[in-house]
Amino acid sequence: MPGLADATRGRILFGGDYNPEQWPEETWHEDVRLMKDAGVNSVTLGVFSWARLEPRPGERDFGWLDRLMDLMHEHGIGVVLATPTASPPPWLGHLHPDTLPVDEDGRTEWWGGRQHFSHSSAVYRRHAAAITEDLAARYGGHPALTMWHINNEYCTFDWGDEAAARFRDWLRRRYGTLDALNAAWGTAFWSQGYGDWAEVHTPRHAHYLKNPTQVLDFRRFTSDMLLECYLAERDIVRRHTPHLPVTTNFMPLWTGQDAWRWAEEEDIVSVDLYPDPRDPLGAQQAALVQDMTRSQARGPWMLMEQAAGPVNWRGVNHPKPAGLNRLWSLQAVARGADAVCYFQWRQSRQGAEKFHSGMVSHAGERGRTYQEVKRLGAELGRIGAEVTESHTGSGIAILHDWHSWWAGAHEGRLSGEVDYPQVLTAWHRALWEAHLATDFAHPEHDLSAYKLVVVPQLYALTDAAIENLLSYVRQGGTLVSGFLTGVADQDDRVRPGGMDVRLRELFGIRTLHEWWPLDAGEAVECDGFRGTLWSEEIETDGEAVVAAAFKGGELDGLPAVLRKGRARYLATLPEADQLRAMLAESAAEAGVRPVLEGLPAGVEAVRRGEVLFVLNHGRESVAVRVPGAFRDLLTGMNVTDELTLDRYGVAVLKP
Amino acid sequence: MPGLADATRGRILFGGDYNPEQWPEETWHEDVRLMKDAGVNSVTLGVFSWARLEPRPGERDFGWLDRLMDLMHEHGIGVVLATPTASPPPWLGHLHPDTLPVDEDGRTEWWGGRQHFSHSSAVYRRHAAAITEDLAARYGGHPALTMWHINNEYCTFDWGDEAAARFRDWLRRRYGTLDALNAAWGTAFWSQGYGDWAEVHTPRHAHYLKNPTQVLDFRRFTSDMLLECYLAERDIVRRHTPHLPVTTNFMPLWTGQDAWRWAEEEDIVSVDLYPDPRDPLGAQQAALVQDMTRSQARGPWMLMEQAAGPVNWRGVNHPKPAGLNRLWSLQAVARGADAVCYFQWRQSRQGAEKFHSGMVSHAGERGRTYQEVKRLGAELGRIGAEVTESHTGSGIAILHDWHSWWAGAHEGRLSGEVDYPQVLTAWHRALWEAHLATDFAHPEHDLSAYKLVVVPQLYALTDAAIENLLSYVRQGGTLVSGFLTGVADQDDRVRPGGMDVRLRELFGIRTLHEWWPLDAGEAVECDGFRGTLWSEEIETDGEAVVAAAFKGGELDGLPAVLRKGRARYLATLPEADQLRAMLAESAAEAGVRPVLEGLPAGVEAVRRGEVLFVLNHGRESVAVRVPGAFRDLLTGMNVTDELTLDRYGVAVLKP
Amino acid sequence: MPGLADATRGRILFGGDYNPEQWPEETWHEDVRLMKDAGVNSVTLGVFSWARLEPRPGERDFGWLDRLMDLMHEHGIGVVLATPTASPPPWLGHLHPDTLPVDEDGRTEWWGGRQHFSHSSAVYRRHAAAITEDLAARYGGHPALTMWHINNEYCTFDWGDEAAARFRDWLRRRYGTLDALNAAWGTAFWSQGYGDWAEVHTPRHAHYLKNPTQVLDFRRFTSDMLLECYLAERDIVRRHTPHLPVTTNFMPLWTGQDAWRWAEEEDIVSVDLYPDPRDPLGAQQAALVQDMTRSQARGPWMLMEQAAGPVNWRGVNHPKPAGLNRLWSLQAVARGADAVCYFQWRQSRQGAEKFHSGMVSHAGERGRTYQEVKRLGAELGRIGAEVTESHTGSGIAILHDWHSWWAGAHEGRLSGEVDYPQVLTAWHRALWEAHLATDFAHPEHDLSAYKLVVVPQLYALTDAAIENLLSYVRQGGTLVSGFLTGVADQDDRVRPGGMDVRLRELFGIRTLHEWWPLDAGEAVECDGFRGTLWSEEIETDGEAVVAAAFKGGELDGLPAVLRKGRARYLATLPEADQLRAMLAESAAEAGVRPVLEGLPAGVEAVRRGEVLFVLNHGRESVAVRVPGAFRDLLTGMNVTDELTLDRYGVAVLKP
Repeated sequence: MPGLADATRGRILFGGDYNPEQWPEETWHEDVRLMKDAGVNSVTLGVFSWARLEPRPGERDFGWLDRLMDLMHEHGIGVVLATPTASPPPWLGHLHPDTLPVDEDGRTEWWGGRQHFSHSSAVYRRHAAAITEDLAARYGGHPALTMWHINNEYCTFDWGDEAAARFRDWLRRRYGTLDALNAAWGTAFWSQGYGDWAEVHTPRHAHYLKNPTQVLDFRRFTSDMLLECYLAERDIVRRHTPHLPVTTNFMPLWTGQDAWRWAEEEDIVSVDLYPDPRDPLGAQQAALVQDMTRSQARGPWMLMEQAAGPVNWRGVNHPKPAGLNRLWSLQAVARGADAVCYFQWRQSRQGAEKFHSGMVSHAGERGRTYQEVKRLGAELGRIGAEVTESHTGSGIAILHDWHSWWAGAHEGRLSGEVDYPQVLTAWHRALWEAHLATDFAHPEHDLSAYKLVVVPQLYALTDAAIENLLSYVRQGGTLVSGFLTGVADQDDRVRPGGMDVRLRELFGIRTLHEWWPLDAGEAVECDGFRGTLWSEEIETDGEAVVAAAFKGGELDGLPAVLRKGRARYLATLPEADQLRAMLAESAAEAGVRPVLEGLPAGVEAVRRGEVLFVLNHGRESVAVRVPGAFRDLLTGMNVTDELTLDRYGVAVLKP
Repeated sequence: MPGLADATRGRILFGGDYNPEQWPEETWHEDVRLMKDAGVNSVTLGVFSWARLEPRPGERDFGWLDRLMDLMHEHGIGVVLATPTASPPPWLGHLHPDTLPVDEDGRTEWWGGRQHFSHSSAVYRRHAAAITEDLAARYGGHPALTMWHINNEYCTFDWGDEAAARFRDWLRRRYGTLDALNAAWGTAFWSQGYGDWAEVHTPRHAHYLKNPTQVLDFRRFTSDMLLECYLAERDIVRRHTPHLPVTTNFMPLWTGQDAWRWAEEEDIVSVDLYPDPRDPLGAQQAALVQDMTRSQARGPWMLMEQAAGPVNWRGVNHPKPAGLNRLWSLQAVARGADAVCYFQWRQSRQGAEKFHSGMVSHAGERGRTYQEVKRLGAELGRIGAEVTESHTGSGIAILHDWHSWWAGAHEGRLSGEVDYPQVLTAWHRALWEAHLATDFAHPEHDLSAYKLVVVPQLYALTDAAIENLLSYVRQGGTLVSGFLTGVADQDDRVRPGGMDVRLRELFGIRTLHEWWPLDAGEAVECDGFRGTLWSEEIETDGEAVVAAAFKGGELDGLPAVLRKGRARYLATLPEADQLRAMLAESAAEAGVRPVLEGLPAGVEAVRRGEVLFVLNHGRESVAVRVPGAFRDLLTGMNVTDELTLDRYGVAVLKP
Repeated sequence: MPGLADATRGRILFGGDYNPEQWPEETWHEDVRLMKDAGVNSVTLGVFSWARLEPRPGERDFGWLDRLMDLMHEHGIGVVLATPTASPPPWLGHLHPDTLPVDEDGRTEWWGGRQHFSHSSAVYRRHAAAITEDLAARYGGHPALTMWHINNEYCTFDWGDEAAARFRDWLRRRYGTLDALNAAWGTAFWSQGYGDWAEVHTPRHAHYLKNPTQVLDFRRFTSDMLLECYLAERDIVRRHTPHLPVTTNFMPLWTGQDAWRWAEEEDIVSVDLYPDPRDPLGAQQAALVQDMTRSQARGPWMLMEQAAGPVNWRGVNHPKPAGLNRLWSLQAVARGADAVCYFQWRQSRQGAEKFHSGMVSHAGERGRTYQEVKRLGAELGRIGAEVTESHTGSGIAILHDWHSWWAGAHEGRLSGEVDYPQVLTAWHRALWEAHLATDFAHPEHDLSAYKLVVVPQLYALTDAAIENLLSYVRQGGTLVSGFLTGVADQDDRVRPGGMDVRLRELFGIRTLHEWWPLDAGEAVECDGFRGTLWSEEIETDGEAVVAAAFKGGELDGLPAVLRKGRARYLATLPEADQLRAMLAESAAEAGVRPVLEGLPAGVEAVRRGEVLFVLNHGRESVAVRVPGAFRDLLTGMNVTDELTLDRYGVAVLKP
C-alpha cells in the first residue's frame, strides 16, 4: 500500500489548504512566488470547491483547476487533491432536502455553512461519488498529484428519517434479531421492548433519560456511516490511482469518529491541531494529539491543519506570539509528523473564517506571520532528510477507546463532573510533565511491547479487552488504572459487582460498596496527596496493599490507591503533581526512563529516531543539559553537554 | 372506602418497586430469599411492564406475571400492582404518533425514554384502559394483591393539537362563554380577544410574554387532564376490586399536579422522596414533604419511593453515608408514613437508571447498602404495631396552594429572584428548626383546629380563601403572612390597590405604594434583623403597630413588619435565624409549644400518637434530654430523662 | 411637512398610552379627572386595539373609540392615534398561519403574546392596510387627533418561507445578478456558490458558522421589510391627513432597525426609554439615547414611552425612588424632548404587563407614583413655552452605524468580549462624564459642523464613509478613533492589510501585524493608563507619534495610542477615567468646552437654546456654581452664580 513516504520522499511536507478560487488569477502568481520563497512544497486543493466544480447539477467546470494543477507542477509544488464533498453546493439541498441532516430536536441543518450533508442520504452519496469519480479520472494521472484527501473533518450527526432507516439496517446487521437487540439495550427497563424493526428509531428528543445503549449504538452507527462515506470515495480514487496514498483529516479527540477503526482504512493518518496559544498547557494538549495520531498511524503522520496565527471559533481568539508557530511545528515533527501544513495558505477576505489566520495573513508579505512561516519553511527543509520516516519509541501506553468514552457519557451517569477527555488529559499530562514518552493504544491491542500500561478510565470494556489486560499483567507488565474502569460491558451493561470480577481480583477489590463522586472543586485528603473528582468505598480482598488511604470524612481509612503485584488501582484522581509523581514512580519501577533527566520546567525533550529535539515552552531563555556531543540541525552548530534555548527555542540535535 | 390500613394491617410496609422482568427467573428466587431476609413485605410490580405485557397491539403475555404473583404470595409478600401506563410500548407511538406529547416549541417527545404519552390522546387513553381492564380482571382476585398503583409520577405536559382541542373543551366548561374567557384572561390587553373557540390554543412559543391567565389555565388543565387519566384507570380497577385501595405516587412539591385536588381521589396518598444526601438541609426538605403528604392524606401515608443509596439524575449523585437511609426512613415513619418503600429492589444492570441505587446494589448481598436495608427492615418490624395508623398532631398550619404558585410564576412578574418553593421552604425551615410541628393546609380549608396559621406567600387568593383567613382571625386565630400575598384573584387579576383591601385592612395597610424587590444576594437592614428578596413601600392605616421598620435606604423608617391584633405581615423575608425567632414568638403567643424544649442543634423530635421519635441528624453523637420514662422500641431499653444518640441515631420512645 | 411642533404648539406633550378598553366606561371619567389634574394633554389610543376594532375578519367596532375620541376632545386632551397592527387578532393567525413569523430554528411564533406577525406576509400587510385605511378615514377629521403612531416597536424577524421569497426579491434588487451576489457574499468560500435564485434562503439553523454577508444582508432586509410595513401604513394615513405628523416609536439602540434610515421617513422621531433605576449609569444610558434620538430627529423629539415606576421585563424590576421620574423626565426635555409620555396611563390589572407601572399605579390616586406624576405635569406646564422647539447644540459627534454593528457581530469574529453597544456606551460615557455635549452622526453625514468627531468602533465602512472621514480631517477636523475601525467594507469583505489603507495612512499605521484581543476581565498596562478588551501589534509609518505604548507582555513598546496630526487611533479601550481624560484633552485641543466647568460629581448640565438645565443625579444635596444671573423656571426664583440642588434636584435656568 502507498503511504506517507510516497509523498514526502525525504522532505517534510510544508504547505496547507489553498483556496485560490477566492482570488483573482493574478493573485495565484503572487501566491506561487511567496510559496517558493517560504519553502512550500505541498498544497491541498479543492477541499470546498464542489459548487465551483459543479455549479449546476451534472455540469463540470474543471478549467480553473487544470490551470492550478499545472501551475503547481510547473513550480514543483505537490498537490494533495481533496474530494469536495464536505460542503455540497446549495443546489443539492434545494433539489433534495432529504440530503440535509436533522438534529435531535428535529431541526434541519440548512446550507449556508458547511457539512450540511446527511451521511445516510443515498442522494448525497450518489452525487458525492459522481464528482469524486470525475475528479479522479481527470487528475489521477496529473504529475502534480501526490495524495488524496477525502472530504474534511467528518463530523455530522443525523437523527432524520433516512438515517433512522439506515440505523435499523445497521442494527439488524449488529444484532441479527430483535430479541438480541432488546437484550443488548435492556429494553425490559421502562417498557421499551421492540416488537418490530420499524419501531426502532434514532434517539430523538425524549421526555426523560434516553436508553443508554440506543444512544451508544447511535454513536457507533454515526461513526460507521461517516466511514462508509469515506470508504466509498476512497475506493473510487484508489481504483484510479492505486499508487497514491489516501487520507482524511481527523479532529483531535473528536467524539464522532472511532479513529482507531478509521485509521485502519487510511494510507496516511492526518489530523488538524489547534491548541489555544493562551493555554498554559497548550503544548501538552498538542503532545497528546500528536502521540495519539502517531499511535493511530503506527509511524509518521501528517499535520494536515494548524494555524499560523489565531483561529476564529473560540470566545476570544489569540494570535501566536513570535516563535510559537515554529515551536509547535517542530514539536509535531519531533513526535512523528512528516508533514507540517496549515489551514490555510492565504487568509480569506470573505466568508465565515476570514478571521482565521493564514500562512499569509491580512498583513501580507510584510506581516510577522508570513515572515515566521518563511523561516520555518527553511528550517524544515534543513532537517527533513534527517528525520522523515524515522520513528519515536515509547515504553508506555495510555489506553483509550471511543466506545468506552461514549458509553460513559450517558446523561444518567453518576457524575457530570467526570469528563472523560479531561481525565485522559490529566493522565497524559502527568506523564508528559515527567518527560516520559507515551503511545496510545486500544485496550484490545497487543501491549507486549510496553513496560507500563496506564488506563486513565475505561468505563466499558469488552471481555477481550479485559483478558488482554490480565494477560499483559500476567506476562510481567505493569498496569496502573484509574477509577470507573471495567464498570460496564460493550452494551453498557454493568458488570456484576459494579466492576468486572476479573479486574477486581487483579486489583484486590473484594467489594465495591459505593461510588462517592466528589463535587466540582472538592478535594479529598489521602495519604500523601489530594484526590479530586471521585472516591470509592472499597473493601479489599486482603491481599492487596493499601498504598494510600482516604483521610477523614466518610471514607476515612479506606483504600484510595490499591496495589497488588504489578497492578495498581486509583480510586480517585490525584492532583496534577501527585499523579505525576505516582506515575513516574510506576514507570521507574517498570524500567522506563525519562527522555532526559533533570530538564528545567517548561522544557520538553523528544527523541525521534536518533535525533533529539529539545523544546523550550517557556518565555525565558534557559540552559539545558544534554549529555553528549551533537550537531544542531537547525543551526549547524556543535553542542556538547549543554545548550541555551531562547524563549520558545528549539534545538534538533543529531549525535 | 379502603385505605392504607387495609394494606398495612399493623405492619409498616417495607419493600419497593420490583422489576424482575429485567432478570432471568433464577434471580427471582434469589430475590425472594433476600427479601425475606430483609423483612420485605410488599413489592410493587408492573410499573413499566406494558411492552412486556402487550408486546404487540392487543396481544397479552401474563404468564411471567402470573408466576411472580404466585411466587410473592407463596412467600407472604404483598403485591402493589401497577398499571403500566406511564411508558407505552414503542408500537403505540409508532402506530399512533398522535399519542406522543409535543412541547412548547413544537418538538415531539419520542419514545426511548419514558412518559412519552399525551394525556389528551384518545388513542392513548383507550389503550391504557384496555390493558388496565385486563390486568384488573386477571389479578383482581389474586391473594397477593394488596393495593393498586396507577401509572407513575404523572408529569407530562402537551402543547399539541389534540391537547389544544381538549384545552378548548376544558375552557368551555370553565367559562361557558367566550366573553367570560376574554374577561378572565384580560384579552383586551395586547389585542388578544377571541372571537371563536377554534382560535384558542395551548400557550405555545411566542414572540414575547404570554398571556398569564392562559398559561395559568393551561397548568390547571394539565393537572386536570392527568387527573382524568388517573381517574379512568382508578375507576376500572375499583370496579374489579372495590375493597382494595388505589394510589398514584406524587413527586414532592411537583409543579404539574394540584395535589390537594388529587389527594381527594386517592385511597392512599403516596409520594416519592429523594433529598440530596449532601444537602445540609436534606432532613428539612424531607420533613417538608412528609408534612405536606401527611396533610394531603389527612393521616398515615405511603413513602412509595426513596433511594437506598444515590440517585442518578443530579449533576453529582452522592451515596448515603452509613446510617442515613435508616435515619431518613424512620423520620418518615415519625411523620406518619406507614410504608417505607424504595425505587427499586435490585439495582438495574441496564437502562437509563442503572446508576440509581437499589435495596440490593451492584455490590449485592455483601454490599453495605443491602446490609443496612436488612437492619432497617428488622427495626421497622419491631415498631410497626406501635405506630401504624396513629396520627401526628400539630397546632400550626402552613398554607399552600398550587394555583397561587402557578399564577405567581409568570415570566412577567416583578422579580425572578422570588421563587415560591424556596419561600415556602424558608418558612417551613424556620418552624422545623424551632421544633414546631406543622401541617400544611389549603387556604380554603377549615383552619379552626390550628392555633397559628402562617402564609409564606399566597400571591393569588380567591374571595373564599380571603374570607376564610378573615374568619380564622376573627375567631381568635393567629395569622402571620409573608409578602406577595393576596395580590391577585383566581384569574391572576391584580386586586385594586395591589393587595386585597380586606387583607390590607386585616394587616393595617392603607396604601401599598410600590413593591421594592431586592437583587440576588442583597439584604436590607431592619430593626433587629435583615430582610432578603423583597421590601415594600407601605403606608399604615394608623392602627397597625410597626413591629419593625426598614433602616437606611429609600424605605428608611417604613414598616418591615406590621402587627394588628392577631395578624402580622412581613414585607420582606427575614434571614433564617430571625424568621425562626419571629415565628417561634408568634407560636408561643398563640400557645403552641415545641415538641421538646432544649434540643441540641441537629436533633429533631417528632411525636406520633404517644410515641416520641428523637432523631440525630448530626454526624456526632449527642446527649438529649427527654423528660420522663420511656422504652426505646428499637432497642427495647428503658430511657429515663436523657439518652445519647450516635451520629444519625434514632430513638423511638414509648412512654 | 408636518412635524412635532404641529402637535406641541408651545406645550410639552405630557401623557401616555391609554388603553381604556381594559376598563369599564365609568373608569374613563375617573381617568379624565385625574388626567386633567395631572396636566395630561396628550394620550395615545389604539396601540393594541385591533381585536377590539375588528373582532372578526372584516367587522368593525368603532363605537367605543368614537366615544373616547369625543371624550378626549371634550376635555382638551389631544389624541395620538395608533394603527393597531403590532398585535393582530387571534383570528388572523388562525385563518392564516402564514402570517406568523418563524424563527431561525423553524419554530412558529404563535399568538397569545404580541408582535406575532410576519413582516413579509402579504396577507398580514393587506389586513393591516385595511384597518389602517378605515381608521384614517373615520378619525382623520376628528378634532382630537394630533398625530399618528404607526404600529409599535417594530422588532420581528422572520426566517419563514414567505420571508425567504421576499429576501430573494430584495437581494435581486440589491445585486441585480447572482454573480454579484456570489461576489459580495464570498460564496467561493465553503462551496456556497448559488446557481439559481431559488436556492438562496434566509440564514436558517446551520451545522456551523453561517455566511457572514448573508446574515448581514438578512439584517438589512429585516430592517427594510419592517420599514416597508411602516411606509405602507404611513402613506395611508398621510393620504387622509397630510397636515398631521406621523411617527413610530423606536427602542433604544435596537439592533433590528437602521434608525438613521427610518428617521428619514418619520415626521416625528420618537423613542421608548427605560433605564434601570438601579443602574448607577442609568442617567448616562438615558443621555445616550436622548442624544441619539435628537440626532436622528435633527431637532426636538418625542419621548413616547417611559415608566413612572418599575418595568416588568428585567430579572428584578426596581421602582423609581422619589424624584427620579421627574429628574429623568426633565433630563429628556433638556436634551431636546418636546414630549414626555409614558407606557401607560393606568396600570393594567390583567395581562402580561400588569406589573409594569402606570402613571396611575395599582395604588391609585393616593399612590406616590401618581402624586409625583402630577407634580411633574405642573412643572412641564411651567417650562414648556420656554423650551419647546429650541435646539441643543454640540461641537462633538459620535459616529454610529447599524450596518457596521451588524457586520461586526458575526459569530466568527475574533472576540466575543467586544460588544459594540458596550464600546459605544463607554465612549459616550467618557464624554458625558466630561460634561461635553455630544451628537451622534452617521459616518456618511456631513461632519463639517463638528470640531471633534469620535469613532468608538466602525468595523465596516463604505468607501464614501472613509472619504468622508479623510475629508473631515483634511478640512481641519479632529478625529479620534477606536480599534476595529475600517476593517471591512459594506459587504463585510476585509480590507487589504486588515484595515483600510487610507485610514492606516491617516493614523500612521504601516503594518497591522496581528490583533490581540484580551480575555474577559483582562487589562493591559499602557503608558499612563490601562487598556481593556483589545490590543494590537502595530508597526507605524515612522510619521505617527506614539502617544502611548503598551508596557510589558508581548506588545511591550508597541503603540497603544497613535497620533498623526489631527487624527488619533486607540488600539485598546482605556478604562473609564482614562478614556474620559483622553477625550477631554482632544476636545480641549479642538476647542470644545464643557457645558459648565467645575461641576460636582453626579451633576449634569445641559444647554437647550438659551436655557440651562442643571440636574443632580446624586442622592445628596449639592452646591453648584453657575456663573451668571438666572431665573429658575421651575421655582420662579432668581439664581445668581450658585444654587443648591436637593437629591435628584433640577434647576431650569433662564438667563
